[in-house]
Amino acid sequence: MDVNHKPLVLDNDRLFKADPSELAISRELYAEVANLPIISPHGHTDPSWFAGNECFQNATELLIIPDHYVFRMLYSQGVALESLGIPRVDGGEVETDYRKIWHIFADHYYLFHGTPSRIWMDFVFSEVFGFEVEFSPQTADFYYDTINAKLVTDAFRPRALLERFNIELLATTEGATDDLQHHAKLQGTGYEKTVITTFRPDDVTDPDRWNFAKNIDLLASQTGEDVTQWHGYLNALRARREFFRAHGATATDHGHPTALTADLSAIECQKLLTEVLSGNATGSQRELFRAQMLTEMAGMSLEDGMVMQIHPGSRRNHNQKVFEKFGLDKGCDIPGRTNFVEDLQPLLAKFGAESQLKIILFTLDESAYARELAPLAGHYPCLKLGPAWWFHDSPEGMLRYRHNVTETAGFYNTVGFNDDTRAFLSIPSRHDVARRIDCRFLAQLVAEKRLSLDVAHQLAYDLSYRLAKEAYQLAK
Amino acid sequence: MDVNHKPLVLDNDRLFKADPSELAISRELYAEVANLPIISPHGHTDPSWFAGNECFQNATELLIIPDHYVFRMLYSQGVALESLGIPRVDGGEVETDYRKIWHIFADHYYLFHGTPSRIWMDFVFSEVFGFEVEFSPQTADFYYDTINAKLVTDAFRPRALLERFNIELLATTEGATDDLQHHAKLQGTGYEKTVITTFRPDDVTDPDRWNFAKNIDLLASQTGEDVTQWHGYLNALRARREFFRAHGATATDHGHPTALTADLSAIECQKLLTEVLSGNATGSQRELFRAQMLTEMAGMSLEDGMVMQIHPGSRRNHNQKVFEKFGLDKGCDIPGRTNFVEDLQPLLAKFGAESQLKIILFTLDESAYARELAPLAGHYPCLKLGPAWWFHDSPEGMLRYRHNVTETAGFYNTVGFNDDTRAFLSIPSRHDVARRIDCRFLAQLVAEKRLSLDVAHQLAYDLSYRLAKEAYQLAK
Amino acid sequence: MDVNHKPLVLDNDRLFKADPSELAISRELYAEVANLPIISPHGHTDPSWFAGNECFQNATELLIIPDHYVFRMLYSQGVALESLGIPRVDGGEVETDYRKIWHIFADHYYLFHGTPSRIWMDFVFSEVFGFEVEFSPQTADFYYDTINAKLVTDAFRPRALLERFNIELLATTEGATDDLQHHAKLQGTGYEKTVITTFRPDDVTDPDRWNFAKNIDLLASQTGEDVTQWHGYLNALRARREFFRAHGATATDHGHPTALTADLSAIECQKLLTEVLSGNATGSQRELFRAQMLTEMAGMSLEDGMVMQIHPGSRRNHNQKVFEKFGLDKGCDIPGRTNFVEDLQPLLAKFGAESQLKIILFTLDESAYARELAPLAGHYPCLKLGPAWWFHDSPEGMLRYRHNVTETAGFYNTVGFNDDTRAFLSIPSRHDVARRIDCRFLAQLVAEKRLSLDVAHQLAYDLSYRLAKEAYQLAK
Repeated sequence: MDVNHKPLVLDNDRLFKADPSELAISRELYAEVANLPIISPHGHTDPSWFAGNECFQNATELLIIPDHYVFRMLYSQGVALESLGIPRVDGGEVETDYRKIWHIFADHYYLFHGTPSRIWMDFVFSEVFGFEVEFSPQTADFYYDTINAKLVTDAFRPRALLERFNIELLATTEGATDDLQHHAKLQGTGYEKTVITTFRPDDVTDPDRWNFAKNIDLLASQTGEDVTQWHGYLNALRARREFFRAHGATATDHGHPTALTADLSAIECQKLLTEVLSGNATGSQRELFRAQMLTEMAGMSLEDGMVMQIHPGSRRNHNQKVFEKFGLDKGCDIPGRTNFVEDLQPLLAKFGAESQLKIILFTLDESAYARELAPLAGHYPCLKLGPAWWFHDSPEGMLRYRHNVTETAGFYNTVGFNDDTRAFLSIPSRHDVARRIDCRFLAQLVAEKRLSLDVAHQLAYDLSYRLAKEAYQLAK
Repeated sequence: MDVNHKPLVLDNDRLFKADPSELAISRELYAEVANLPIISPHGHTDPSWFAGNECFQNATELLIIPDHYVFRMLYSQGVALESLGIPRVDGGEVETDYRKIWHIFADHYYLFHGTPSRIWMDFVFSEVFGFEVEFSPQTADFYYDTINAKLVTDAFRPRALLERFNIELLATTEGATDDLQHHAKLQGTGYEKTVITTFRPDDVTDPDRWNFAKNIDLLASQTGEDVTQWHGYLNALRARREFFRAHGATATDHGHPTALTADLSAIECQKLLTEVLSGNATGSQRELFRAQMLTEMAGMSLEDGMVMQIHPGSRRNHNQKVFEKFGLDKGCDIPGRTNFVEDLQPLLAKFGAESQLKIILFTLDESAYARELAPLAGHYPCLKLGPAWWFHDSPEGMLRYRHNVTETAGFYNTVGFNDDTRAFLSIPSRHDVARRIDCRFLAQLVAEKRLSLDVAHQLAYDLSYRLAKEAYQLAK
Repeated sequence: MDVNHKPLVLDNDRLFKADPSELAISRELYAEVANLPIISPHGHTDPSWFAGNECFQNATELLIIPDHYVFRMLYSQGVALESLGIPRVDGGEVETDYRKIWHIFADHYYLFHGTPSRIWMDFVFSEVFGFEVEFSPQTADFYYDTINAKLVTDAFRPRALLERFNIELLATTEGATDDLQHHAKLQGTGYEKTVITTFRPDDVTDPDRWNFAKNIDLLASQTGEDVTQWHGYLNALRARREFFRAHGATATDHGHPTALTADLSAIECQKLLTEVLSGNATGSQRELFRAQMLTEMAGMSLEDGMVMQIHPGSRRNHNQKVFEKFGLDKGCDIPGRTNFVEDLQPLLAKFGAESQLKIILFTLDESAYARELAPLAGHYPCLKLGPAWWFHDSPEGMLRYRHNVTETAGFYNTVGFNDDTRAFLSIPSRHDVARRIDCRFLAQLVAEKRLSLDVAHQLAYDLSYRLAKEAYQLAK
């Protein structure tokens, strides 16, 4: 290596507060949770990786092209998505020289200073691939070749990485009409309890989703129900939930633009369903349909025991030109304000007092943490708070979460960490960040005599491991 | 005591920042304000305690059943309110075994880690009752018996506690039609200037209040005014304000769902009153009535010199099932967004420039601190900012308040601390938390060379004692 | 000087965190940027000062009467604006005894503890005027006489101060129909590249502006365009933009109440223009006109390369009585909520993907930082984030900005500091505060092992100097 190359150092004290008294406590707490198994109850990795256990092939294909956290930053500075090899919806030409794309990434790596992407990526480079020099335009080829060489070895097969990462449980997320073939293939491999699915019905409950009508047709043919009738439509969903549970699912997930819920009569529901299936529903009818479906899903969770996750607040595909050219999930979903207090009331009026029901709320609107979410979760038996999410899945975001939520909701109305990622190799890093920040927060409370050290030890374990298992009903 | 029982230690440095330079300054500032008399100008203790001076009887009855901060947390984790002895509206059966309830509380005490309720409760246990072992399921009986034994001694009578807590002034809060018999009874006891009332007219100014029509009838009979006429209705309120002032009141309090104000013509007001009294007013007419009444109350404050407090933003009784079964104030009021800038404009257009008028604003929507409240209070002569309130009456809430408000409003557009509590025994603790956090904030400014130490000393005194007396017009 | 007078000390470590490890890094970073030239690309100083280079005359006239940060605080505590010499719109009598006003200011100087105004003013006193005793009622005359004596010396002429302050570039702001006579006068003086103008067309694009019709008439006569025709109106604006560019302008500035944008057809635009010019447009038509004009201005920026600044969110002239008596910019503009995500979409749908376009967004609604602004700027090629603005141009405001924005937008989607001030003498102090706070933030990242020290050095330079030049397209 060139002497000019800087070392890549992941300091043992990274993300802890520098104040010596807090630092010492952070270290002590972290030491005991650093190596706990990873519970990843909510994420977007590809189940075919674990079913097929084929080698990954290429650094660019694995680390850049699927990671919208990465390419949105380059795009924001004028780098065309085509030049990064992002596939076009129309199949039009994009860059295919993966080494060239890797160099563009290296040239712009300085943009990530101060961002969580940099933390995750440096961890992947150092801990997963063992690099000891910093990633830079000068070391880009060395990195590219080394990574590619390692990826095709057995040690880097998906299941080997599951073991190495000490992942006790990983939930993927599939649409309601998914055939779950990869999860089926996992049965009997010894990994069927490690990799499970999550039921995400948005494709058949949100009329604004792409191909909604077609999805509903598929739902009908899969279940044999008359989905044009409200009762049949609900039964079809019940059947799919059962199918998912048979493939390990313990939870559902709902990614609506708002948190609106409704509690309509069966007659109104039938009218709304008919309208929605006709394709002529207005915007507010479609929103009302989604609202009613959240309440229906809560009711089914009460029946079948699945944990319900509500992730509202993303204005999807805000950049229309990018959406038209490159499709969904291309880094152009932008958060907006979310009103939990009024929006959730219809659902909570019906099911709020049910302590058998578990609903986990996430937000992209941090102003709701102390104002709405902590008071709601600190009161309603059915509600729990999911961790800092998406743009707030970051050191500062996690600190704001704990500082804003804890005093009203306590620790035990929260559910541990979710990595929510499709970047498989970054999972250890993401959990490491969460554990470090939680230990840092606890260390502050201890140093300020707001918590005893022995309680902090217990909480560090709970936040790192136990609460996630409990909240998602994951047996050991 | 069993050797396994942990000591209950209230560290002298609790709530201060651990950094040694800031810690030393925090200690120095706090030392001078720790023992200042308590000014509690806004709260909800029961005046009959001080009028009758009877002993409290039972730990559970005193510390758990009336404290919605406490039982909402247990309820959020699936503990039924019935099992905690919370009385039902219909008089139906609830748990009456107070020792059993006390044990349920002890079993769930771990839920309060990191919450202000734990800070307050530990203070009550340690400083008020003198416990030296931590409260836990194992020590629950010892606690229960010890507390009950102490409560029936003279040293724990309400007036003795007033003295011991060094409470110079305590304001309770009564509805407009209250007969103030307890405050009347205090006259001549030497406590009539220590325990005063506050005029809270929501029951007769907010058509959405329970029993509004009946309250209005009572108002009419108490004052002999024709309350169906706008002029008579206002005069009735004037008369009640005078009655309250005769019982020591220096302030009014208004707990509307929003901060909306209005400035209608007398003809419009008469129409609205007629509509509201008919019971047929729409939701927006009722909201407009409340809005107009805030402006009227400001006008009367200008006439009679009473300080006006506006506490908007709570969506009361959000959990309908709990409300129906257990009634008001059962921990199911949830904050929502508040828009001060547009909502207050009609009132401010009329009275904003009056420096004789004093309006104290509180919020449950912290996003308004730096954006709306500090700019408003840093400009309008009539406006001052109340302290961090309710869910934000906590170490983190107070820190956010000072950090967000001070740069635009300064210190002298704030009014010191309010405990706002019905938990009498927690009052010293709540003021202690506020004094510690203010000293901590000032210590940070001193350590960062943003304030001189001598100014910080003056400010610590002002924030702990002087500003509250001045803002609420309380003579020495 | 009386021995009782306290020394005025600007501590070298002011605004840095007290923790020793962070403090040492803050010092090191700051040492390298403290003396960099000042780039002030957005402000409101009076260009006639630099064109005429006449001496300032009086402390009160220079430091109090024009500074709404100062007199709003005094007004909030009951000091009448008349008594501070603020000129009345009707020419009515106000205080003219400048020494007396200066004393009122001195008597109330304690109100500014903890505010940025105090930091700026103490810097002006210490560093610009060389005072060594603290400003107080006792030293007020000494201050007043000393300042007045210095102001009339050559060393305090505007151009001498430009040199002394090491101001490399200062942009003033002028309305679209301004004749730019002062900037014209600067041509050939050697200061024509130091003092440039900024194009602020609100007076002819916002129908709610005072004298809108008259301004439009002037625009027509200046350009010879038929401004009643949509095409002619746009061409008139194009001509004025060109005129401004000839006087050094590289940027435009738009101060709308909201961030609303629109993308209407030419026919709709013509209708709207006709309505607006008729004076009969409704409130929502006027808002739509402003919205359309933001999109038009973005389009012209793409044509002519001017950087576009959007400053939404101020509810101007909230205190109607002050506005009627004293006019615009009298400290009674109050921020409100701003919705960037929905409001900007029409503009972004049209131009968002243009990496040649540069739009700098500012906000008074900090809840939008992490929720909306960082995600938008971290995605759209045309968007950058302006610094903490107005009420948030303060140590705490800047810290909140960096903590909330950096993780999603990175550093390189921000544009360095703007002082945005009409208080010329405070410019060095304002940039000093920004540099100190940025160094403090970077030092925290370094101390917490989130950034390497050498990268922090580079970033300190970029944030203090380079990014502003680059963002505003200012050649060396």
